Amino acid sequence: MSRYVLIFSVMYCPTVTDRATMCSVILIMKERYFDDVKAGDRFKSGSLSVSEKELVEFAHKFDPQMFHLSRKRAERTIFKGLIASGWHTGALSMFLFVQTLNFAEGAIGLGVDELRWPNAVRPGDVLTVETEILDVRPSRSRPGHGIIRFRNVTTNQRGEVVQTMLASAMVPRRPKHESAD
Amino acid sequence: MSRYVLIFSVMYCPTVTDRATMCSVILIMKERYFDDVKAGDRFKSGSLSVSEKELVEFAHKFDPQMFHLSRKRAERTIFKGLIASGWHTGALSMFLFVQTLNFAEGAIGLGVDELRWPNAVRPGDVLTVETEILDVRPSRSRPGHGIIRFRNVTTNQRGEVVQTMLASAMVPRRPKHESAD
Repeated sequence: MSRYVLIFSVMYCPTVTDRATMCSVILIMKERYFDDVKAGDRFKSGSLSVSEKELVEFAHKFDPQMFHLSRKRAERTIFKGLIASGWHTGALSMFLFVQTLNFAEGAIGLGVDELRWPNAVRPGDVLTVETEILDVRPSRSRPGHGIIRFRNVTTNQRGEVVQTMLASAMVPRRPKHESAD
Repeated sequence: MSRYVLIFSVMYCPTVTDRATMCSVILIMKERYFDDVKAGDRFKSGSLSVSEKELVEFAHKFDPQMFHLSRKRAERTIFKGLIASGWHTGALSMFLFVQTLNFAEGAIGLGVDELRWPNAVRPGDVLTVETEILDVRPSRSRPGHGIIRFRNVTTNQRGEVVQTMLASAMVPRRPKHESAD
Protein backbone atom coordinates (compact mmCIF):
# COMPACT_ATOMS: atom_id res chain seq x y z
CA MET A 1 0.00 0.00 0.00
CA SER A 2 1.37 3.40 -0.91
CA ARG A 3 1.28 6.17 1.62
CA TYR A 4 -0.62 9.33 0.98
CA VAL A 5 -0.55 12.73 2.62
CA LEU A 6 -3.69 14.76 3.06
CA ILE A 7 -3.23 18.46 2.55
CA PHE A 8 -6.05 20.67 3.74
CA SER A 9 -6.21 23.96 1.95
CA VAL A 10 -8.74 26.63 2.72
CA MET A 11 -9.52 29.34 0.18
CA TYR A 12 -12.11 31.92 -0.73
CA CYS A 13 -14.44 30.75 -3.49
CA PRO A 14 -16.66 33.31 -5.23
CA THR A 15 -20.31 32.32 -5.25
CA VAL A 16 -23.31 33.35 -7.37
CA THR A 17 -24.56 35.44 -4.46
CA ASP A 18 -21.86 38.03 -5.19
CA ARG A 19 -20.11 37.26 -1.95
CA ALA A 20 -17.01 35.27 -1.03
CA THR A 21 -17.62 32.10 0.96
CA MET A 22 -15.10 29.90 2.71
CA CYS A 23 -14.65 26.54 1.02
CA SER A 24 -12.47 23.68 2.18
CA VAL A 25 -10.55 21.91 -0.50
CA ILE A 26 -8.84 18.61 0.18
CA LEU A 27 -5.97 17.65 -2.05
CA ILE A 28 -4.47 14.18 -1.88
CA MET A 29 -0.78 14.11 -2.68
CA LYS A 30 1.10 10.87 -3.02
CA GLU A 31 4.41 10.67 -1.18
CA ARG A 32 7.26 10.03 -3.56
CA TYR A 33 10.20 7.63 -3.25
CA PHE A 34 13.58 7.38 -4.97
CA ASP A 35 12.12 4.56 -7.07
CA ASP A 36 9.47 6.89 -8.49
CA VAL A 37 11.87 9.22 -10.33
CA LYS A 38 14.29 8.75 -13.22
CA ALA A 39 16.75 10.94 -15.13
CA GLY A 40 14.90 13.27 -17.49
CA ASP A 41 11.77 13.59 -15.33
CA ARG A 42 10.50 17.15 -14.99
CA PHE A 43 8.24 18.65 -12.36
CA LYS A 44 6.62 22.06 -12.27
CA SER A 45 5.75 23.55 -8.88
CA GLY A 46 2.84 25.70 -7.87
CA SER A 47 3.62 29.38 -7.46
CA LEU A 48 3.95 31.84 -4.62
CA SER A 49 4.34 35.56 -4.37
CA VAL A 50 6.76 37.50 -2.20
CA SER A 51 5.58 40.69 -0.53
CA GLU A 52 7.67 43.76 0.30
CA LYS A 53 7.05 43.14 4.02
CA GLU A 54 8.34 39.53 3.86
CA LEU A 55 11.31 40.56 1.73
CA VAL A 56 12.37 43.27 4.19
CA GLU A 57 11.76 41.05 7.25
CA PHE A 58 13.95 38.32 5.81
CA ALA A 59 16.70 40.84 5.07
CA HIS A 60 16.64 42.27 8.60
CA LYS A 61 17.10 38.79 10.01
CA PHE A 62 19.57 37.36 7.54
CA ASP A 63 20.95 39.75 4.94
CA PRO A 64 20.90 43.34 6.23
CA GLN A 65 22.18 45.17 3.13
CA MET A 66 20.76 48.41 1.78
CA PHE A 67 19.25 46.96 -1.43
CA HIS A 68 17.19 44.54 0.69
CA LEU A 69 16.23 46.68 3.69
CA SER A 70 14.12 49.63 2.60
CA ARG A 71 12.61 50.97 -0.60
CA LYS A 72 14.15 54.40 -0.11
CA ARG A 73 17.71 53.22 0.48
CA ALA A 74 17.44 50.59 -2.27
CA GLU A 75 16.57 53.28 -4.83
CA ARG A 76 20.07 54.71 -4.45
CA THR A 77 21.73 51.36 -5.32
CA ILE A 78 22.53 49.88 -8.74
CA PHE A 79 19.26 47.89 -8.49
CA LYS A 80 17.21 51.14 -8.39
CA GLY A 81 14.77 49.51 -6.00
CA LEU A 82 14.20 46.84 -3.40
CA ILE A 83 15.31 43.28 -4.24
CA ALA A 84 15.12 40.01 -2.29
CA SER A 85 18.20 38.44 -0.72
CA GLY A 86 19.48 35.54 -2.81
CA TRP A 87 19.05 33.40 0.31
CA HIS A 88 15.38 34.38 0.40
CA THR A 89 14.97 33.40 -3.25
CA GLY A 90 16.74 30.12 -2.44
CA ALA A 91 14.53 29.44 0.57
CA LEU A 92 11.30 30.23 -1.33
CA SER A 93 12.45 27.96 -4.16
CA MET A 94 13.14 25.22 -1.60
CA PHE A 95 9.56 25.52 -0.34
CA LEU A 96 8.16 25.09 -3.85
CA PHE A 97 10.51 22.15 -4.55
CA VAL A 98 9.63 20.37 -1.28
CA GLN A 99 5.89 20.79 -1.86
CA THR A 100 6.11 19.52 -5.43
CA LEU A 101 8.45 16.55 -5.12
CA ASN A 102 7.02 15.57 -1.69
CA PHE A 103 9.49 12.78 -0.91
CA ALA A 104 8.45 10.42 1.90
CA GLU A 105 10.55 11.26 4.97
CA GLY A 106 11.97 14.27 3.09
CA ALA A 107 14.86 15.06 0.78
CA ILE A 108 18.17 15.52 2.60
CA GLY A 109 20.32 18.14 0.89
CA LEU A 110 23.80 16.78 0.22
CA GLY A 111 25.11 19.89 -1.43
CA VAL A 112 24.70 22.54 -4.08
CA ASP A 113 27.20 22.69 -6.93
CA GLU A 114 26.01 25.82 -8.66
CA LEU A 115 23.66 28.54 -7.54
CA ARG A 116 23.07 31.66 -9.67
CA TRP A 117 20.69 34.63 -9.56
CA PRO A 118 20.51 35.95 -13.16
CA ASN A 119 17.68 38.40 -12.32
CA ALA A 120 16.62 39.98 -9.06
CA VAL A 121 13.38 39.11 -7.25
CA ARG A 122 11.33 42.23 -6.47
CA PRO A 123 8.31 42.80 -4.20
CA GLY A 124 5.13 41.29 -5.64
CA ASP A 125 6.98 38.84 -7.90
CA VAL A 126 5.37 35.43 -8.32
CA LEU A 127 7.83 32.53 -8.36
CA THR A 128 7.59 29.03 -9.83
CA VAL A 129 10.21 26.26 -9.79
CA GLU A 130 10.84 23.71 -12.51
CA THR A 131 12.83 20.66 -11.44
CA GLU A 132 14.67 18.35 -13.82
CA ILE A 133 16.07 15.09 -12.50
CA LEU A 134 19.56 14.74 -14.00
CA ASP A 135 20.78 11.52 -12.45
CA VAL A 136 19.68 8.87 -9.96
CA ARG A 137 21.76 6.22 -8.15
CA PRO A 138 21.31 4.00 -5.09
CA SER A 139 23.22 5.16 -2.00
CA ARG A 140 26.25 2.99 -1.27
CA SER A 141 26.38 3.81 2.44
CA ARG A 142 22.61 3.76 3.10
CA PRO A 143 20.84 0.91 1.29
CA GLY A 144 17.42 2.35 2.21
CA HIS A 145 18.15 5.54 0.30
CA GLY A 146 19.07 6.80 -3.14
CA ILE A 147 20.84 9.90 -4.41
CA ILE A 148 19.20 12.22 -6.92
CA ARG A 149 20.99 14.97 -8.79
CA PHE A 150 18.70 17.69 -10.10
CA ARG A 151 18.48 21.19 -11.52
CA ASN A 152 15.95 23.70 -10.18
CA VAL A 153 15.11 26.75 -12.27
CA THR A 154 13.06 29.46 -10.57
CA THR A 155 11.21 31.92 -12.78
CA ASN A 156 9.08 34.99 -12.11
CA GLN A 157 5.65 35.88 -13.54
CA ARG A 158 7.29 37.24 -16.71
CA GLY A 159 9.18 33.99 -17.32
CA GLU A 160 12.52 35.57 -16.38
CA VAL A 161 14.92 33.22 -14.62
CA VAL A 162 15.65 34.48 -11.09
CA GLN A 163 17.61 31.44 -9.84
CA THR A 164 19.25 28.31 -11.18
CA MET A 165 20.55 25.60 -8.89
CA LEU A 166 22.34 22.32 -9.47
CA ALA A 167 22.14 20.11 -6.37
CA SER A 168 22.08 16.61 -4.92
CA ALA A 169 19.81 15.12 -2.30
CA MET A 170 19.37 11.79 -0.53
CA VAL A 171 15.82 10.43 -0.63
CA PRO A 172 14.28 7.20 0.74
CA ARG A 173 13.80 4.09 -1.36
CA ARG A 174 10.35 2.52 -1.35
CA PRO A 175 10.08 0.06 1.56
CA LYS A 176 9.89 -3.54 0.29
CA HIS A 177 6.39 -4.09 1.72
CA GLU A 178 4.96 -1.20 -0.31
CA SER A 179 4.04 -1.36 -3.98
CA ALA A 180 4.09 1.57 -6.40
CA ASP A 181 0.30 1.43 -6.84
CA MET B 1 37.55 60.75 4.22
CA SER B 2 36.50 57.19 4.95
CA ARG B 3 32.92 56.49 5.76
CA TYR B 4 31.91 54.94 9.03
CA VAL B 5 28.73 53.29 10.16
CA LEU B 6 27.43 53.74 13.65
CA ILE B 7 25.87 50.65 15.14
CA PHE B 8 23.77 51.25 18.22
CA SER B 9 23.49 48.20 20.40
CA VAL B 10 21.48 48.17 23.59
CA MET B 11 22.14 45.53 26.22
CA TYR B 12 21.57 44.81 29.89
CA CYS B 13 24.61 45.52 32.03
CA PRO B 14 24.68 44.16 35.58
CA THR B 15 25.41 46.82 38.18
CA VAL B 16 26.64 46.71 41.77
CA THR B 17 23.11 47.39 42.96
CA ASP B 18 22.15 43.78 42.11
CA ARG B 19 19.86 45.00 39.39
CA ALA B 20 20.14 45.12 35.61
CA THR B 21 20.33 48.59 34.08
CA MET B 22 20.03 49.55 30.45
CA CYS B 23 23.30 50.70 28.94
CA SER B 24 23.82 51.97 25.42
CA VAL B 25 26.93 50.79 23.67
CA ILE B 26 28.08 52.45 20.47
CA LEU B 27 30.34 50.49 18.17
CA ILE B 28 31.99 52.20 15.24
CA MET B 29 32.56 49.93 12.27
CA LYS B 30 34.45 51.10 9.23
CA GLU B 31 32.80 50.42 5.90
CA ARG B 32 34.97 48.31 3.67
CA TYR B 33 35.70 48.66 -0.06
CA PHE B 34 37.07 46.31 -2.71
CA ASP B 35 40.42 48.11 -2.35
CA ASP B 36 40.64 47.09 1.32
CA VAL B 37 40.85 43.33 0.74
CA LYS B 38 43.39 41.06 -0.95
CA ALA B 39 43.75 37.34 -1.64
CA GLY B 40 44.71 35.50 1.53
CA ASP B 41 42.92 37.88 3.91
CA ARG B 42 40.92 36.13 6.62
CA PHE B 43 38.06 37.44 8.70
CA LYS B 44 36.37 35.86 11.70
CA SER B 45 32.77 36.82 12.44
CA GLY B 46 31.03 37.23 15.73
CA SER B 47 28.75 34.37 16.72
CA LEU B 48 25.04 33.78 17.01
CA SER B 49 22.90 31.00 18.38
CA VAL B 50 19.87 29.41 16.78
CA SER B 51 16.90 28.49 18.95
CA GLU B 52 14.47 25.61 18.43
CA LYS B 53 11.65 28.13 17.89
CA GLU B 54 13.52 30.00 15.14
CA LEU B 55 14.61 26.74 13.52
CA VAL B 56 11.04 25.41 13.37
CA GLU B 57 9.58 28.75 12.22
CA PHE B 58 12.06 28.94 9.34
CA ALA B 59 11.21 25.38 8.32
CA HIS B 60 7.46 26.03 8.32
CA LYS B 61 7.98 28.97 5.98
CA PHE B 62 10.65 27.59 3.69
CA ASP B 63 11.56 23.92 4.19
CA PRO B 64 8.64 21.97 5.66
CA GLN B 65 10.26 18.56 6.08
CA MET B 66 9.88 16.29 9.09
CA PHE B 67 13.47 16.59 10.37
CA HIS B 68 13.04 20.39 10.55
CA LEU B 69 9.44 20.75 11.76
CA SER B 70 9.02 19.19 15.21
CA ARG B 71 11.21 17.49 17.77
CA LYS B 72 8.91 14.48 17.97
CA ARG B 73 8.75 13.79 14.24
CA ALA B 74 12.46 14.51 13.81
CA GLU B 75 13.35 11.80 16.36
CA ARG B 76 12.04 9.17 13.93
CA THR B 77 14.37 10.32 11.11
CA ILE B 78 18.00 9.37 10.44
CA PHE B 79 19.03 12.56 12.26
CA LYS B 80 17.43 11.33 15.53
CA GLY B 81 16.39 14.87 16.35
CA LEU B 82 15.58 18.31 15.06
CA ILE B 83 18.03 19.92 12.60
CA ALA B 84 18.05 23.29 10.82
CA SER B 85 17.29 23.60 7.12
CA GLY B 86 20.45 24.04 5.09
CA TRP B 87 18.90 27.28 3.78
CA HIS B 88 18.58 28.48 7.37
CA THR B 89 22.25 27.68 8.02
CA GLY B 90 23.10 29.51 4.79
CA ALA B 91 21.02 32.56 5.74
CA LEU B 92 22.49 32.74 9.27
CA SER B 93 25.99 32.46 7.80
CA MET B 94 25.14 35.28 5.39
CA PHE B 95 24.17 37.48 8.34
CA LEU B 96 27.50 36.86 10.05
CA PHE B 97 29.43 37.43 6.80
CA VAL B 98 27.59 40.71 6.03
CA GLN B 99 28.15 42.05 9.55
CA THR B 100 31.84 41.17 9.50
CA LEU B 101 32.91 42.27 6.04
CA ASN B 102 30.57 45.31 6.09
CA PHE B 103 31.14 46.42 2.50
CA ALA B 104 30.02 49.97 1.69
CA GLU B 105 26.78 49.73 -0.35
CA GLY B 106 26.77 45.97 0.26
CA ALA B 107 28.14 42.81 -1.36
CA ILE B 108 26.10 41.67 -4.36
CA GLY B 109 26.10 37.87 -4.61
CA LEU B 110 27.08 36.76 -8.10
CA GLY B 111 26.85 33.07 -7.42
CA VAL B 112 27.78 30.11 -5.27
CA ASP B 113 29.93 27.35 -6.72
CA GLU B 114 29.97 24.92 -3.86
CA LEU B 115 27.76 24.71 -0.82
CA ARG B 116 28.05 21.78 1.60
CA TRP B 117 26.62 20.91 5.01
CA PRO B 118 29.04 18.34 6.53
CA ASN B 119 27.30 18.43 9.94
CA ALA B 120 23.77 19.36 10.92
CA VAL B 121 22.90 22.49 12.91
CA ARG B 122 20.79 21.66 15.98
CA PRO B 123 18.78 23.88 18.35
CA GLY B 124 21.02 25.89 20.67
CA ASP B 125 24.06 25.65 18.41
CA VAL B 126 26.27 28.73 18.27
CA LEU B 127 27.60 29.54 14.80
CA THR B 128 30.66 31.48 13.65
CA VAL B 129 31.84 32.15 10.09
CA GLU B 130 35.42 32.38 8.92
CA THR B 131 35.92 34.08 5.54
CA GLU B 132 38.98 33.68 3.38
CA ILE B 133 39.43 35.96 0.36
CA LEU B 134 40.62 33.70 -2.48
CA ASP B 135 40.86 36.13 -5.37
CA VAL B 136 40.15 39.78 -6.20
CA ARG B 137 39.80 41.47 -9.60
CA PRO B 138 38.31 44.73 -10.90
CA SER B 139 34.94 44.38 -12.63
CA ARG B 140 35.21 44.73 -16.40
CA SER B 141 31.62 45.84 -16.90
CA ARG B 142 31.33 48.10 -13.84
CA PRO B 143 34.47 50.20 -13.27
CA GLY B 144 33.21 51.34 -9.86
CA HIS B 145 33.15 47.77 -8.60
CA GLY B 146 35.41 44.78 -8.06
CA ILE B 147 34.78 41.04 -7.85
CA ILE B 148 35.87 39.03 -4.83
CA ARG B 149 35.96 35.27 -4.68
CA PHE B 150 35.84 33.87 -1.16
CA ARG B 151 35.30 30.78 0.96
CA ASN B 152 33.06 30.89 4.04
CA VAL B 153 33.37 28.14 6.63
CA THR B 154 30.68 28.03 9.31
CA THR B 155 31.45 26.16 12.53
CA ASN B 156 29.47 25.37 15.66
CA GLN B 157 30.49 25.80 19.31
CA ARG B 158 32.40 22.50 19.21
CA GLY B 159 34.44 23.58 16.17
CA GLU B 160 32.58 21.17 13.87
CA VAL B 161 32.09 22.48 10.33
CA VAL B 162 28.37 22.85 9.56
CA GLN B 163 28.71 24.64 6.20
CA THR B 164 31.32 25.41 3.59
CA MET B 165 30.65 27.78 0.71
CA LEU B 166 32.69 28.98 -2.23
CA ALA B 167 31.16 32.12 -3.73
CA SER B 168 31.71 35.35 -5.65
CA ALA B 169 30.39 38.82 -4.95
CA MET B 170 30.58 42.27 -6.50
CA VAL B 171 31.62 45.01 -4.09
CA PRO B 172 32.22 48.77 -4.57
CA ARG B 173 35.64 50.27 -5.20
CA ARG B 174 36.67 53.17 -2.98
CA PRO B 175 35.44 56.44 -4.53
CA LYS B 176 38.38 58.52 -5.81
CA HIS B 177 37.68 61.40 -3.42
CA GLU B 178 38.04 59.10 -0.38
CA SER B 179 41.32 57.97 1.09
CA ALA B 180 41.92 54.72 2.97
CA ASP B 181 42.62 56.58 6.24
